[in-house]
Amino acid sequence: MNDANIYAKQGFGNKSGFGVRPALLLIDFVNGFNDPKLFGGGNIPQAIAQTQPLLACARRIGAPVCFTRVVYAQDGADNGVFCLKAPKLAILTPDAHASQIVDELTPVAGEYVLNKTQPSAFFGTNLVNWLISKGVDTVIATGATTSGCVRASVVDSMSYNFRTIVVSDCVGDRALGPHEANLFDMQQKYADLMTCAETISQLERLKTNT
Amino acid sequence: MNDANIYAKQGFGNKSGFGVRPALLLIDFVNGFNDPKLFGGGNIPQAIAQTQPLLACARRIGAPVCFTRVVYAQDGADNGVFCLKAPKLAILTPDAHASQIVDELTPVAGEYVLNKTQPSAFFGTNLVNWLISKGVDTVIATGATTSGCVRASVVDSMSYNFRTIVVSDCVGDRALGPHEANLFDMQQKYADLMTCAETISQLERLKTNT
Amino acid sequence: MNDANIYAKQGFGNKSGFGVRPALLLIDFVNGFNDPKLFGGGNIPQAIAQTQPLLACARRIGAPVCFTRVVYAQDGADNGVFCLKAPKLAILTPDAHASQIVDELTPVAGEYVLNKTQPSAFFGTNLVNWLISKGVDTVIATGATTSGCVRASVVDSMSYNFRTIVVSDCVGDRALGPHEANLFDMQQKYADLMTCAETISQLERLKTNT
Amino acid sequence: MNDANIYAKQGFGNKSGFGVRPALLLIDFVNGFNDPKLFGGGNIPQAIAQTQPLLACARRIGAPVCFTRVVYAQDGADNGVFCLKAPKLAILTPDAHASQIVDELTPVAGEYVLNKTQPSAFFGTNLVNWLISKGVDTVIATGATTSGCVRASVVDSMSYNFRTIVVSDCVGDRALGPHEANLFDMQQKYADLMTCAETISQLERLKTNT
Repeated sequence: MNDANIYAKQGFGNKSGFGVRPALLLIDFVNGFNDPKLFGGGNIPQAIAQTQPLLACARRIGAPVCFTRVVYAQDGADNGVFCLKAPKLAILTPDAHASQIVDELTPVAGEYVLNKTQPSAFFGTNLVNWLISKGVDTVIATGATTSGCVRASVVDSMSYNFRTIVVSDCVGDRALGPHEANLFDMQQKYADLMTCAETISQLERLKTNT
Repeated sequence: MNDANIYAKQGFGNKSGFGVRPALLLIDFVNGFNDPKLFGGGNIPQAIAQTQPLLACARRIGAPVCFTRVVYAQDGADNGVFCLKAPKLAILTPDAHASQIVDELTPVAGEYVLNKTQPSAFFGTNLVNWLISKGVDTVIATGATTSGCVRASVVDSMSYNFRTIVVSDCVGDRALGPHEANLFDMQQKYADLMTCAETISQLERLKTNT
Repeated sequence: MNDANIYAKQGFGNKSGFGVRPALLLIDFVNGFNDPKLFGGGNIPQAIAQTQPLLACARRIGAPVCFTRVVYAQDGADNGVFCLKAPKLAILTPDAHASQIVDELTPVAGEYVLNKTQPSAFFGTNLVNWLISKGVDTVIATGATTSGCVRASVVDSMSYNFRTIVVSDCVGDRALGPHEANLFDMQQKYADLMTCAETISQLERLKTNT
Repeated sequence: MNDANIYAKQGFGNKSGFGVRPALLLIDFVNGFNDPKLFGGGNIPQAIAQTQPLLACARRIGAPVCFTRVVYAQDGADNGVFCLKAPKLAILTPDAHASQIVDELTPVAGEYVLNKTQPSAFFGTNLVNWLISKGVDTVIATGATTSGCVRASVVDSMSYNFRTIVVSDCVGDRALGPHEANLFDMQQKYADLMTCAETISQLERLKTNT
């Protein structure tokens, strides 16, 4: 019996579905996670390219949009255990080029850009209260890396009881083994996987019904 | 370049180390996660057996011990998105046999047994404040499943800045692919992997130094 | 210039208003907080009496209902700093009479009854994810005590961006000075005060509009 | 029976005490909370003056120091219910003069300066994980306002099981009634009150014992 069969037999892998008030979350699409010399590589450039039409769609239908960045204090005052496991993270200071959102996905006024120091976009941030203030019931997750900050954010999003969508071609990772392994875990237990095209089509349908 | 090389080149996989005040965390070692007909199987029975000497050691040196269980209300009042992805979880009611800690690892008086509804042992629980009240700086994680509640708890433990140890032979999963993939992710980014024997030896050394 | 004038001049005391999807929160209406020999007294009995028609109204219109209790482990494993400040709290064990919801406000199947160990109903509990799962935008707070668990819960409710209503005659306290002082603080900064009659009228109006 | 007697009879008002690893927390000592035309006034200037020797002492003995500021996005993207209750808060943007720490208490390199949007210094911030990373067991609270952000932060500090000290002459409020009422509540239930002189003396004693 292969892994997928074991999960199927135990009743995992059902759909949690799409609600009626989605928000788009773009996790750590910053220069440093796009640069293979820093924390990037793999299929992250493709994920960035693919997220452009999805972001345009979210803006068109008026869905709330949130970008996250990893940012540590210039003087290292808030460096913790994560910076012991991966010391280079400490270069992600507020004004560093590596910490800025990639040009392809520049935020516009009114979109929420939040700084975080831990993998999950929810940890030590105001993301959950921002989502509540917007009446959101569904979180659409894109970003980098699939096996890192996307996975951690998706587990928290589901734990907060947001229906959670992982856009399979809008998330990327520096290495493809962990990318695939984490898509499997998330689909089985925490989120529904949808392609970018399927997600756009679902968002357009919602708009029409409103 | 293989996955491990990519991570090494980007500066991941360093050790965060062991502090001086560890606590032992036993995640979801309940009957339902040991029963292959429910949510168990794979190498979970071996993890339970292996955790027995580690628990005995923690008790011997007086380290704080915390057990977690997944528990939902009898009437389903707190079922959420997790129960949409895996509907059978809703059988884990307070008095169900499936929700009780396995006999091999029965808690004793003064040990903390907490109920949770989400993957992470920290989400919606008093685990972080309990650890603070005990002055803990290091969390030793054991339990089931490696790719589920252990992974989610370890990410949060690291995010709270506890030095975090995953005891590689005291965690288990229903399927071995996700078990291995998640050990890789955790070791690279969130925690140090140690065997049960190494962990016991480290704990005994701490005791001697006190 | 009196206190209210100072707040008015600085722009406090505006209304945050009522949304369209309210939940009713009954905080610590348990025997121990109704018994003047334990933690009760003052105007708590009147608040309990007054909350009965409000609870009936919430049930009639199908608003989600959540009760909280303070509960500590029988063996004291989770006693912390709060139990240093007020050691008698440790008697509030799961089966103690003092920890049970008062007879006048007995929960029915499907209503959420949560245990907590700290003042806020949100701290270390699944309240925020339960509210999200119900699509709630407005929290209606009742309970005991005004200056303790009600105040702490209301600050968190507002911080999570729920529009928050304190039902002024459905909250009570062991002593009237702190009751009044905390109503003032909450009305100025965190919540709107409404009487029970006004709240029922608002809920009935919502129902009609649905 | 007066209020204090009622609390005494029910077993409140005990001391939670001082641990061995304190941190100093300076809450919202920013220009806007010192300016009576914005959110200041009352005894806040005295609290700022009184906090100077305490900050000097914390630096001398090497205790971790954290400053908080209230900061909202320039474009209002993260304004929520708090800004409905008190709309002027939205002027506290990152570069506004009103949002900067007062000159008398300027942070030095390595001290942690955190931004928050809600009353509690813990809500949506990395304060708890920063405190854990420093091994802190005791939080010494100073700042403004006593009835607002100090009170909310103290309740959370206690809930996280930090022994919590409110330095009675280093906290201030725009109006004295709420200042006094909240000192009473905190002393009865959440924290020990100490004067600045007592706190400095306790910190010096700790240093000597180390």
